[in-house]
Amino acid sequence: MKITILTLFPEMFDGFLNTSIMKKARLKNLAEIETVDIRSFTQDKHHRVDDYPFGGGQGMILQCQPVLDALKSIRNEQSHVILLAPVGRVFKQSIAREYVKKEHIILICGHYEGFDERIMDYVDESMSIGDYVLTGGEVASMVITDAIVRLVDGVITQASHEDESFENGLLEYPQYTHPVEYDGKTVPEVLLSGHHENIRKFRLKESLRKTLRYRPDLLENYELNKEEVKFLNEIKTEEDL
Amino acid sequence: MKITILTLFPEMFDGFLNTSIMKKARLKNLAEIETVDIRSFTQDKHHRVDDYPFGGGQGMILQCQPVLDALKSIRNEQSHVILLAPVGRVFKQSIAREYVKKEHIILICGHYEGFDERIMDYVDESMSIGDYVLTGGEVASMVITDAIVRLVDGVITQASHEDESFENGLLEYPQYTHPVEYDGKTVPEVLLSGHHENIRKFRLKESLRKTLRYRPDLLENYELNKEEVKFLNEIKTEEDL
Repeated sequence: MKITILTLFPEMFDGFLNTSIMKKARLKNLAEIETVDIRSFTQDKHHRVDDYPFGGGQGMILQCQPVLDALKSIRNEQSHVILLAPVGRVFKQSIAREYVKKEHIILICGHYEGFDERIMDYVDESMSIGDYVLTGGEVASMVITDAIVRLVDGVITQASHEDESFENGLLEYPQYTHPVEYDGKTVPEVLLSGHHENIRKFRLKESLRKTLRYRPDLLENYELNKEEVKFLNEIKTEEDL
Repeated sequence: MKITILTLFPEMFDGFLNTSIMKKARLKNLAEIETVDIRSFTQDKHHRVDDYPFGGGQGMILQCQPVLDALKSIRNEQSHVILLAPVGRVFKQSIAREYVKKEHIILICGHYEGFDERIMDYVDESMSIGDYVLTGGEVASMVITDAIVRLVDGVITQASHEDESFENGLLEYPQYTHPVEYDGKTVPEVLLSGHHENIRKFRLKESLRKTLRYRPDLLENYELNKEEVKFLNEIKTEEDL
């Protein structure tokens, strides 16, 4: 698959694209990720890409021409075009799973002061990564790229995905590694026991405990089985809820 | 204010810290943003920072020692320590407003396979930026840093904040700039009229329309005044809702 990021700040992506999992995915040719500089498409003789808003107001607004000419230069029939902006549905793991199946994703990074509304007519959808205001779409496009690329086959081992937070509807269970004791705090004994069934139960119960504690809203859409109902009742008694 | 980011990949931040608003905030000494390399604190002779999980499972788990020694080296009484992880409350604009008042924020980037649970005992809170799985906390820490730093006095003009999405509980109204006509699409006439009151009404109504269309959930917690109720009813008729 291929991801193309349209941005006014391509240099912002150097570190991101050349580190860790993104670097690995690119070197192994599992995913192609490129940036396109919107400014290089401007027809303005001073190389400007923005102008004052009609009707008055603060800030400079990104203009149609440079963005849409940049888009035209790379869009093909397989492209799915996403404008990063506070409007639009909020990105979540199920959308990442949907996007990883697409051949070509184009992410357009909005400008921090705003963009000409008419750009919306040329994209497939607009998307936000959460209810906060960012300087521009750049870090948001890194978030979406990261979440998608790590799902591409071969980028990380398949088994790593299975117990992850949000994948099965719960937060992930707590993990522990060496040493057994750190600063007086020890690893739960069951994890050292080698008893697979007890370890499975411990992890399921602690996964439920974390979800109840930090994200009770996730449980509202989660169908509990009999064992999970039992654990959840135990947790509520233990935590005095 | 100062933000310190603890990470295994400090090189990932070069582009982010040296571009656009982050660069400006740093050059003007409005915000200090630094990265600390967790790996440089390991006491392991092979420079390892992770190990296999107790109880079995996929992936390598970030160990207590390097993370907590790195934390110890920079934490002071003013520090507010946040671990970026899928558990924890979800970041939003009101939290950015809370954080910008703090003297020192420390962001610890979790490892993509997981971290030793005991690290949680040494932080003030854990935080997620949304319901999706990321390779590590690095891009999440950029999101939080970006959202905070742009709120620091002097980084962007105060008036720019006023109409932003999420700031007043609604999505921002549509913006338009030159040219008046692009590809057959024209700027709404009212914005060219110079009639301030009509422009204000247009913007409020379109802000409501966008919120209703893209994020109706935001309206649930929004207290509508009389004018807004009227506009919302008009919109529902116009959109046949």
